[in-house]
Amino acid sequence: MSHKLFLLPGDGIGPEAMAEVRKIIAYMNEAMNTGFETEEGLVGGCAYDAHGSAISEDDMAKAMAADAVLFGAVGGPKWDAVPYEVRPEAGLLRLRKDLELFANLRPAICYPALANASSLKPELVEGLDILIVRELTGGVYFGEPKTIIDLGNGQKRAIDTQVYDTYEIERISSVAFELARTRKNAVCSMEKRNVMKSGVLWNQVVTETHKAKFSDVKLDHMLADAGGMQLVRAPKQFDVIVTDNLFGDMLSDVAAMLTGSLGMLPSASLGAPDAKTGKRKALYEPVHGSAPDIAGQGVANPIAMIASFAMCLRYSFNMVAEADHLEKAIANVLDKGIRTGDIMAEGATRVGTAEMGDAILAEFKSL
Amino acid sequence: MSHKLFLLPGDGIGPEAMAEVRKIIAYMNEAMNTGFETEEGLVGGCAYDAHGSAISEDDMAKAMAADAVLFGAVGGPKWDAVPYEVRPEAGLLRLRKDLELFANLRPAICYPALANASSLKPELVEGLDILIVRELTGGVYFGEPKTIIDLGNGQKRAIDTQVYDTYEIERISSVAFELARTRKNAVCSMEKRNVMKSGVLWNQVVTETHKAKFSDVKLDHMLADAGGMQLVRAPKQFDVIVTDNLFGDMLSDVAAMLTGSLGMLPSASLGAPDAKTGKRKALYEPVHGSAPDIAGQGVANPIAMIASFAMCLRYSFNMVAEADHLEKAIANVLDKGIRTGDIMAEGATRVGTAEMGDAILAEFKSL
Ligand SMILES: CC(C)[C@H](C(=O)O)[C@@H](O)C(=O)O
Ligand SMILES: CC(C)[C@H](C(=O)O)[C@@H](O)C(=O)O
Repeated sequence: MSHKLFLLPGDGIGPEAMAEVRKIIAYMNEAMNTGFETEEGLVGGCAYDAHGSAISEDDMAKAMAADAVLFGAVGGPKWDAVPYEVRPEAGLLRLRKDLELFANLRPAICYPALANASSLKPELVEGLDILIVRELTGGVYFGEPKTIIDLGNGQKRAIDTQVYDTYEIERISSVAFELARTRKNAVCSMEKRNVMKSGVLWNQVVTETHKAKFSDVKLDHMLADAGGMQLVRAPKQFDVIVTDNLFGDMLSDVAAMLTGSLGMLPSASLGAPDAKTGKRKALYEPVHGSAPDIAGQGVANPIAMIASFAMCLRYSFNMVAEADHLEKAIANVLDKGIRTGDIMAEGATRVGTAEMGDAILAEFKSL
Repeated sequence: MSHKLFLLPGDGIGPEAMAEVRKIIAYMNEAMNTGFETEEGLVGGCAYDAHGSAISEDDMAKAMAADAVLFGAVGGPKWDAVPYEVRPEAGLLRLRKDLELFANLRPAICYPALANASSLKPELVEGLDILIVRELTGGVYFGEPKTIIDLGNGQKRAIDTQVYDTYEIERISSVAFELARTRKNAVCSMEKRNVMKSGVLWNQVVTETHKAKFSDVKLDHMLADAGGMQLVRAPKQFDVIVTDNLFGDMLSDVAAMLTGSLGMLPSASLGAPDAKTGKRKALYEPVHGSAPDIAGQGVANPIAMIASFAMCLRYSFNMVAEADHLEKAIANVLDKGIRTGDIMAEGATRVGTAEMGDAILAEFKSL
């Protein structure tokens, strides 16, 4: 079994965070014989600077051939004015689309040591553990037409198209139901069926999929706007939330911010299992962005990137114990009061990116 | 000058809340000679029950002829299975579209007496006063095609279309800039220009409108997902937020919930000033829904409906002092510890819908 990792650190704090994951990979190869092979490519603004597109064909081919892609972050003010087609985000969107990574898993957990960092009252977020399952290759992100037309008279018309087919809703809701079975066995599906036809179809297909194959799982439906409210009011009412690409973008960001652990949250984007090998294409990525304001200073928090690698161990290589240990190492380091600037608290020890990575690695070794 | 009010109480708690506004109208006519003429119609589920559509042509004509429409709430489980075209929400959407109510004003304020009711830490919401200006007649709510196609093989395809023209973005951002001038003079525009062409055009037109006519106002741009995060993290950073129909739906609900005052928040939906008379068509509506679970029990909170009437006094009839007094009456009653069940607190006096309405009216009379 091959263990090919393709690293795309990207822009901003991406490379600094990725360097800490490299240390963990090196350790695992040496001490645990994991045999990870790594290659590295360019994505986002740095790719644009190098060759005028947000990801090269060569790097796309490497991503397609890899067992898993580790992705840092893309974008920054430097590329605000580049043409829409080659803007930094286009690299990420192409990876999602061409690798058919339709299932985006975004855990929103509250690290106990950080409950006070949330803007919510601590009792509302202590112990919070939600999993948002976001559809990632459909909807308004990719539907056609997607264009701006010149109508003359100084008027333009912009069009985006939200499209969902039955099979897309069926496969993403199946992922949500399956994951719910490994958790608290409850799924809440969110859409705007009172306004959108895609919401009507979404609601129908989720209901049918549930009835046909997952009737042991508790299923609720909520309008997406009410869902946003309920996330703020009482987030612990949720276990798994399944929703479309755009609502997932909004709702997972709100949920992430609620935890007070934004700089620490990972994500996994998975494809369908291959018919022959059963392997899923996969990309792992921190939820935070490229944070250009603090890039290059060695102060960024590498935890989300490391936690994304833990998800990679779990979902791409079935290294469940290793993933558990790595996650535990992160929690322990936080419990010891070791903090980067973004999560600094009174009485804690402030460290930089590399020190945080080293502390987690040391803890990981000891477990 | 005519003072024609068309009342559409709708479903659920709508009629109970509207009854309290009727008391205030009656008092104003008697004591202040305001000459309000009221007529009442049906909208939503009750209209469907009466004549099979979510609003009749006759009531639409009355809404068009009125100086202002007061709207309660629509919907409830009773109508969950009615056809999409005649579902309760269709009545509200038709009113917005046919009256061309493109500017939806949603204040998110935190009543001082209720700062503790928020799920956010009190210091983050005390004194909060945001105005969300939501585009209300365009975008994915109304764009065509909007349909579900049968593809055969058990597959369906749902399509919704997000469309924005230059003039639509120009007029809504002008409203936002004008209102900002009466407040803290700052506008934050939110879209997803990194993914949506409508976001690209939105950003351009807001920027141009600002440059051409409102360069004295502070303007920022934020991606809508980041905007949702920032609302949760530090809501007081915002003054006026301007955004499209769907993002406005999501973001205004999140903002409303943050305040802890959800059951108390009003909204105004305004059209363009008439070329001859300068009058705007207008509809005033509480942000909360029809709350079917507590309907008919006389326990609903009428404050959002009464505060919506205060917005009506301000925006449709330029009765600024009266609007100020009515808002002050609400705040005073809350300060006295008079509460409906939804905002009950220790040591407060629990009252029903009618008693709350009476208390506000008594306070209003005394100011
Ligand atoms: C960078 C951007 C294109 C992306 C998205 O909108 O999906 C990001 O916000 C995310 O949530 O991963
Ligand atoms: C009832 C529904 C159609 C409506 C909307 O989506 O606009 C509501 O959520 C609102 O925000 O006024």
